Amino acid sequence: MINKIRRSRHFNKETFMRDFFHEPGNVPGTLVIDENAYYPEIILIDYNTDNYTKQEIASPEECIPFLDGNSVSWVDVRGLGNLDILQRVGQIFDLHPLVLEDVVNMAERPKTEEYEDQLLIIARMVVPKKNAFGFFSEQVSLVLGKTYLLTVQEEPEHDCFDAVRSRIEKSKGIIRKSGADYLTYALLDAIIDGFFPVLERYGEQIEDLEEEVITKPTQKTLQKIYKIKRELLQLRRAIWPQRDVISSLMRDSGENISDEVRIYLRDCYDHAVQVIDMVETYRELTSGLMDVYLSAVSNKMNEIMKILTVVSSIFIPLTFVAGIYGMNFNTEKSPYNMPELNWYWGYPLCLAVMAAIAGGLLFFFWRRGWLERSLTIKQD
Amino acid sequence: MINKIRRSRHFNKETFMRDFFHEPGNVPGTLVIDENAYYPEIILIDYNTDNYTKQEIASPEECIPFLDGNSVSWVDVRGLGNLDILQRVGQIFDLHPLVLEDVVNMAERPKTEEYEDQLLIIARMVVPKKNAFGFFSEQVSLVLGKTYLLTVQEEPEHDCFDAVRSRIEKSKGIIRKSGADYLTYALLDAIIDGFFPVLERYGEQIEDLEEEVITKPTQKTLQKIYKIKRELLQLRRAIWPQRDVISSLMRDSGENISDEVRIYLRDCYDHAVQVIDMVETYRELTSGLMDVYLSAVSNKMNEIMKILTVVSSIFIPLTFVAGIYGMNFNTEKSPYNMPELNWYWGYPLCLAVMAAIAGGLLFFFWRRGWLERSLTIKQD
Amino acid sequence: MINKIRRSRHFNKETFMRDFFHEPGNVPGTLVIDENAYYPEIILIDYNTDNYTKQEIASPEECIPFLDGNSVSWVDVRGLGNLDILQRVGQIFDLHPLVLEDVVNMAERPKTEEYEDQLLIIARMVVPKKNAFGFFSEQVSLVLGKTYLLTVQEEPEHDCFDAVRSRIEKSKGIIRKSGADYLTYALLDAIIDGFFPVLERYGEQIEDLEEEVITKPTQKTLQKIYKIKRELLQLRRAIWPQRDVISSLMRDSGENISDEVRIYLRDCYDHAVQVIDMVETYRELTSGLMDVYLSAVSNKMNEIMKILTVVSSIFIPLTFVAGIYGMNFNTEKSPYNMPELNWYWGYPLCLAVMAAIAGGLLFFFWRRGWLERSLTIKQD
Amino acid sequence: MINKIRRSRHFNKETFMRDFFHEPGNVPGTLVIDENAYYPEIILIDYNTDNYTKQEIASPEECIPFLDGNSVSWVDVRGLGNLDILQRVGQIFDLHPLVLEDVVNMAERPKTEEYEDQLLIIARMVVPKKNAFGFFSEQVSLVLGKTYLLTVQEEPEHDCFDAVRSRIEKSKGIIRKSGADYLTYALLDAIIDGFFPVLERYGEQIEDLEEEVITKPTQKTLQKIYKIKRELLQLRRAIWPQRDVISSLMRDSGENISDEVRIYLRDCYDHAVQVIDMVETYRELTSGLMDVYLSAVSNKMNEIMKILTVVSSIFIPLTFVAGIYGMNFNTEKSPYNMPELNWYWGYPLCLAVMAAIAGGLLFFFWRRGWLERSLTIKQD
Amino acid sequence: MINKIRRSRHFNKETFMRDFFHEPGNVPGTLVIDENAYYPEIILIDYNTDNYTKQEIASPEECIPFLDGNSVSWVDVRGLGNLDILQRVGQIFDLHPLVLEDVVNMAERPKTEEYEDQLLIIARMVVPKKNAFGFFSEQVSLVLGKTYLLTVQEEPEHDCFDAVRSRIEKSKGIIRKSGADYLTYALLDAIIDGFFPVLERYGEQIEDLEEEVITKPTQKTLQKIYKIKRELLQLRRAIWPQRDVISSLMRDSGENISDEVRIYLRDCYDHAVQVIDMVETYRELTSGLMDVYLSAVSNKMNEIMKILTVVSSIFIPLTFVAGIYGMNFNTEKSPYNMPELNWYWGYPLCLAVMAAIAGGLLFFFWRRGWLERSLTIKQD
Repeated sequence: MINKIRRSRHFNKETFMRDFFHEPGNVPGTLVIDENAYYPEIILIDYNTDNYTKQEIASPEECIPFLDGNSVSWVDVRGLGNLDILQRVGQIFDLHPLVLEDVVNMAERPKTEEYEDQLLIIARMVVPKKNAFGFFSEQVSLVLGKTYLLTVQEEPEHDCFDAVRSRIEKSKGIIRKSGADYLTYALLDAIIDGFFPVLERYGEQIEDLEEEVITKPTQKTLQKIYKIKRELLQLRRAIWPQRDVISSLMRDSGENISDEVRIYLRDCYDHAVQVIDMVETYRELTSGLMDVYLSAVSNKMNEIMKILTVVSSIFIPLTFVAGIYGMNFNTEKSPYNMPELNWYWGYPLCLAVMAAIAGGLLFFFWRRGWLERSLTIKQD
Repeated sequence: MINKIRRSRHFNKETFMRDFFHEPGNVPGTLVIDENAYYPEIILIDYNTDNYTKQEIASPEECIPFLDGNSVSWVDVRGLGNLDILQRVGQIFDLHPLVLEDVVNMAERPKTEEYEDQLLIIARMVVPKKNAFGFFSEQVSLVLGKTYLLTVQEEPEHDCFDAVRSRIEKSKGIIRKSGADYLTYALLDAIIDGFFPVLERYGEQIEDLEEEVITKPTQKTLQKIYKIKRELLQLRRAIWPQRDVISSLMRDSGENISDEVRIYLRDCYDHAVQVIDMVETYRELTSGLMDVYLSAVSNKMNEIMKILTVVSSIFIPLTFVAGIYGMNFNTEKSPYNMPELNWYWGYPLCLAVMAAIAGGLLFFFWRRGWLERSLTIKQD
Repeated sequence: MINKIRRSRHFNKETFMRDFFHEPGNVPGTLVIDENAYYPEIILIDYNTDNYTKQEIASPEECIPFLDGNSVSWVDVRGLGNLDILQRVGQIFDLHPLVLEDVVNMAERPKTEEYEDQLLIIARMVVPKKNAFGFFSEQVSLVLGKTYLLTVQEEPEHDCFDAVRSRIEKSKGIIRKSGADYLTYALLDAIIDGFFPVLERYGEQIEDLEEEVITKPTQKTLQKIYKIKRELLQLRRAIWPQRDVISSLMRDSGENISDEVRIYLRDCYDHAVQVIDMVETYRELTSGLMDVYLSAVSNKMNEIMKILTVVSSIFIPLTFVAGIYGMNFNTEKSPYNMPELNWYWGYPLCLAVMAAIAGGLLFFFWRRGWLERSLTIKQD
Repeated sequence: MINKIRRSRHFNKETFMRDFFHEPGNVPGTLVIDENAYYPEIILIDYNTDNYTKQEIASPEECIPFLDGNSVSWVDVRGLGNLDILQRVGQIFDLHPLVLEDVVNMAERPKTEEYEDQLLIIARMVVPKKNAFGFFSEQVSLVLGKTYLLTVQEEPEHDCFDAVRSRIEKSKGIIRKSGADYLTYALLDAIIDGFFPVLERYGEQIEDLEEEVITKPTQKTLQKIYKIKRELLQLRRAIWPQRDVISSLMRDSGENISDEVRIYLRDCYDHAVQVIDMVETYRELTSGLMDVYLSAVSNKMNEIMKILTVVSSIFIPLTFVAGIYGMNFNTEKSPYNMPELNWYWGYPLCLAVMAAIAGGLLFFFWRRGWLERSLTIKQD
Repeated sequence: MINKIRRSRHFNKETFMRDFFHEPGNVPGTLVIDENAYYPEIILIDYNTDNYTKQEIASPEECIPFLDGNSVSWVDVRGLGNLDILQRVGQIFDLHPLVLEDVVNMAERPKTEEYEDQLLIIARMVVPKKNAFGFFSEQVSLVLGKTYLLTVQEEPEHDCFDAVRSRIEKSKGIIRKSGADYLTYALLDAIIDGFFPVLERYGEQIEDLEEEVITKPTQKTLQKIYKIKRELLQLRRAIWPQRDVISSLMRDSGENISDEVRIYLRDCYDHAVQVIDMVETYRELTSGLMDVYLSAVSNKMNEIMKILTVVSSIFIPLTFVAGIYGMNFNTEKSPYNMPELNWYWGYPLCLAVMAAIAGGLLFFFWRRGWLERSLTIKQD
């Protein structure tokens, strides 16, 4: 029942779209396991106002005792590399086959779907890379029940939930006093706010490029601009549906989410809109940069042409004059044959004529303002 | 009653729009048979939980016994080359003349229309070509009745329903336990998912072009970009109305589609949105590539101009100097006439001056950073 | 009461917008007769299931006997060149002054308006030119009453209703059994389907240009692209409001249009949407062509520059070398003055040096891949 | 209470936006009088079916006797240069302070606002300039009461109401039989129709530019295109809200406007939509022209480069050959030193070689098709 | 509880977006104090029809006596540099933690939120710089209660409320007779109207650039255009949500805002729409300018190339002719070896030939119209 996955070769390119292609004609609900995926590790955090437990559990069944009761249980599955474990998780939480498929098959579009007493949220999380530009992008699925929250991440590294975990552990804010819906909100908020540091980097890079594009436009500049453009497209594709998810949670999510949490979601929604605003602004700036680049390259060409034109226009006529007096007409045959060659002041006069021509042309080009810029050493 | 078909000469160009032009003023319901079309072959698959029959039938009437009863009958007509057979199919399934026209006349826009106890769905299927880029695009018409599904395809090759046929035959999933509406869903899902492998290829090609456009931009690159752009336009034209079709099936399709299947259609709808997302992203990337191409070509020109400028600017002045001492002023007539020619160190000094000029210019260009790039051998 | 018409000088240019400018401040309902317009000829077709009459009538009043009764009367007025006749037509059909103004004054925007027992439809018809690209565009006004349909065309030639006339005459389809509303539908359908042959030509032309723009981009190419762009704009301006007209007929047109005909209008609406789809696709292709053109021109420039650069870079240094040994330094004055001139192997050595320089440069350019393309004869 | 007006220096540039800037923090209702504005002149036209009076009145109070009664009074204030008169007008017509502010402060956005028994309409009128391209743009405020219409214009010249005045005077159409609401309609219709002659000029200018941009693209062409673009932006800014005004009058304007007049407004609305259509079409054409311009300039550059390349490529090698035989190698020292110089046929052979080179290159360029175009005299 | 603020390095660049990045995972309601922020100064203005008090207060608690009673109290906090004071302000006004966070954390998106008996408005104020282009942009938070208005600004300088303060002090208009909601309106109106002077400058700058871009397009021009584009993006980002804020205040703001003030808000809304109109128009003009710039640069290149082509095309052939007669063929060996050198009129004839060539080429270029423009001194 496990089909061979069809995955684009983009997989190992971290910042490009890791698009998941649905195998046409598959039975709906088919789980596709990627052989290179991480083996799932499961972290259980169980808490209420008074108690707090955190443990890594080996088999999914270990979390069953925690699910019923008056505490919030957060079961965090990280890694999608084992079919058996994922299916057992599905059974424990009584997931609809389509839900399990959405959770396991990455690269779904962010969305929310309501089931009888569960709420499925597919979100996309971005985490900036440590020492390079770009970011990791990862799908996070959240299944919210009455007293539990099941989250499924693609891999154990790179998430942006540490601050939330610490808030639970240290009982900061009202999180320990609230239910699983508040936890869902807190995670969604962390996901949305996780876009800001990524965007901040693009803002800085765009600012650097604004300088570079004018002073030193090279092929590299062009590649950088295009790369930013592509990655912003990717961010945009991630954040737009996420906004709709939050908006839909605020309005339609039934009894799974309390009114109190809805107020907090409004705040989260505002941040999502702000992220969208910034992505769109950066996209416009990037496309403006492309225009500027093109103009700057044309400008550069003008400068190059000016140098060529100045040098050629001055020396080609001079060379012609020199060429004339290099001709071998026989001055003895006729007084009209290059008498200048035999003049007393012939050579100095010839040089003077050349100097006059050069001076005239230099004046012409100087008046046009070509000399200052063109002939400065070290322009770019 | 059969009019001569007006078909654009695009017909044999597989990837361009095979637009069907309605003959102005025709009686509505006129069937237009293309002489080169395939002779229809009819495959009947009849199944329920317990039984499974698959047979190719020669005359449409053979399927009548299967239509009534408690099994699902899938009548798959492949080929539109015979008027008589198509009309008999129309009579057997009691099709409205306009439905029959839509089914037979290819190149309709995807749409869905509800008739008394039938549901007409016009869809468009894409199948990637085997050994070339591009894809085949084909219209599929589905007529859903209580216990049967009639599908009409343009030609017997290239469809993406094999996986569904195998699911029926091997009774995978719930398909054998479900009705004709589930079969409809399964086929639609296969059609939508059929866009993914096609898109995957474009994703790869765009990625290749991202490299090519910077390092080696040629006319071919330009043609490839334009071709992708054109084919994405075509995909877009196919998928957008298809999304609306599915959305409308989810909402409005009356009793023809059961609530259970509607849930599955939601999944199918998500995939259609994902296809649209990818098509639009690829279109934006393609149009970004065009900008990059233009910039890269300008950059290339700059490099060419730099070489010309460096070479000309260095040698033209030197040639001028050589030209001066090639003049024939009579040194005997006057001590001012080119005394340098008779100097002891005249020639070496002249060469030294030339070297100084060349060195100065080389320094000037080196400071501008032109030499490194321009004069490397093997740039592109 | 007849004002001088203000008409743009575009009138005689067939493919550009023949915009009609409303004289500011005119009494509403003012009829403006163009002196160059055709003298109206009136064709009456009267039919029911059993009878069929077609006659050209000289005075509008001749059609009065046909209007009451149990047959459908189609009064087709072609030409707007006579005020008196048009006013008499207005009286016979009891037209509101504003309706008559809309009918007579061409270049209205397609629209539909409902009056007490009449329905006014302003449509725009396009007819491809015979031996040239481009099309004629003409306003057709339809006034639908209970048992009659009045149509007013700008001129007697060029319409796309012949097939409908033949269907009436030969009693094809259900037209003879249906009312005036079905006739209205049939004409509208013919008008919409009339866009297809026009579009087909643009499709072909775009395909030709796709080749031309890369292999042989000239000023003419540019003009053609722009011309297509402009004419597509015109088609778009005609078809968009027409779609709204049909959509509004389907929904709002009261008792003038029967439910049965509404089903047919749905088909007509689909075709209008398809026309819009094609116009928009062609517009995108055209604007892509403009980008390709610009890029191809830049590419061409690169090729030109490469030739110049190759030729100049090779021969300018060589000429410099020749210039050196053309100098007249007195070899007798000093052993340092151009001793090469007196060497036994001087000349061959000099030629060898030149050959080495030329060879080196050729190798440099060959490695850059400039020679193959640039120096092939007959490139474009 | 009268603040110093902050007005952009664009004021005297007729075609650019005369933007009025609201002084931040002002008391709402503050009237700002421009010192250079015209002194208001007040024209009163009072009419009903039987009577007609037109007079210029010196003080606003003179119109009070006309306001009550069974005639329609049109009070037309032209000029905004006197605070006292405007305030007295405000008192007579019992205007809300905000209404008076909107009326007096120019450069409001077209809008309509309903007050208890008054209807305020802010419109924008354009009048083509006499002997130049471009147009005057002026705000017209209309205050419609039961039996009167107050209009306020910026200045006494340039309006497009003359035809309406003449219709009233000569009792053309139904204007004398209708109320103040019909007069309002007539003026709005004249304002909208006033856009047509302005647009007509742009249509003509665009058509001229279509030729110029290809055959003779200069800086001037560029400036003209940009100017048209800018002015179309201005027209667009004026007409879009005006359409909304009319649409809102048709739907929401309460009892101030009778049902009969609403039918006429529909016609006016159609014209507004047509104006928008044309503005948008012209904008698209203009932006197409910009693309064509850029391409044409690049094309021109190609032609220039071809000439340079042809001339250089032919003569530079020839000059090199001449340079070789200008070298001074001593032929007496060695038989290898330029023996050609002493050949009997040396010079003719040398010329023949040159001719062969030149011929070969000419053939090469001719095959590329560069010669015909490049070397024709009088190209542009 | 105070986290280290993550602030982009854009902070000190005044005109770029000072984006505030929400720390992912923070407890909602966390206050982030910027160490470089201004120490809050608090101005209290308390007024009713009869009384007026204005004082700077040192501790927030001093305003408590004013809050209850029949006067309007405007508490204006300027500066965000002290956590304690801000928290005490929060307690005094009983602010929800999320409200306090929004107020303190700058760079929120303009929005309005309704709480039980308070209305929160986040607005963005722009103030033009004194001696430079660009503007300061600052967040203003307004909390409207029954009898008080709390405003929080980022810093004590640069606001646009002076005119409102003076209206209160001097009792201009109805402000002293109205409630806190009118004060809110007055401040919002001042904020919106504050965009006009900023926009005015851009209008002027665009107009200057329209000239510069054609006559003297340099790198600087390009940078200016891009800068304007970027800053307009920023203005747009500020004004669009502000329009929605006002629109929402007009419709939904419950009992906090009286009907009378709603009428005034309509005026304010009109101004916001006008600002948007201007921003969008300026953006279109700016992007048109970029196109013009690119074209102008290309044009300039054409001029440069023309000069080069004219000079080269004239002198290169002449130099070739001179080169020919500089060859050293031995005229004594053969009568065919350069007999011209020994002709009586050899030299003058040679000069004549050169003059003829030069004349012919000059004529050729003059006919093409290249000479007038290219060779005028002082072109740009």
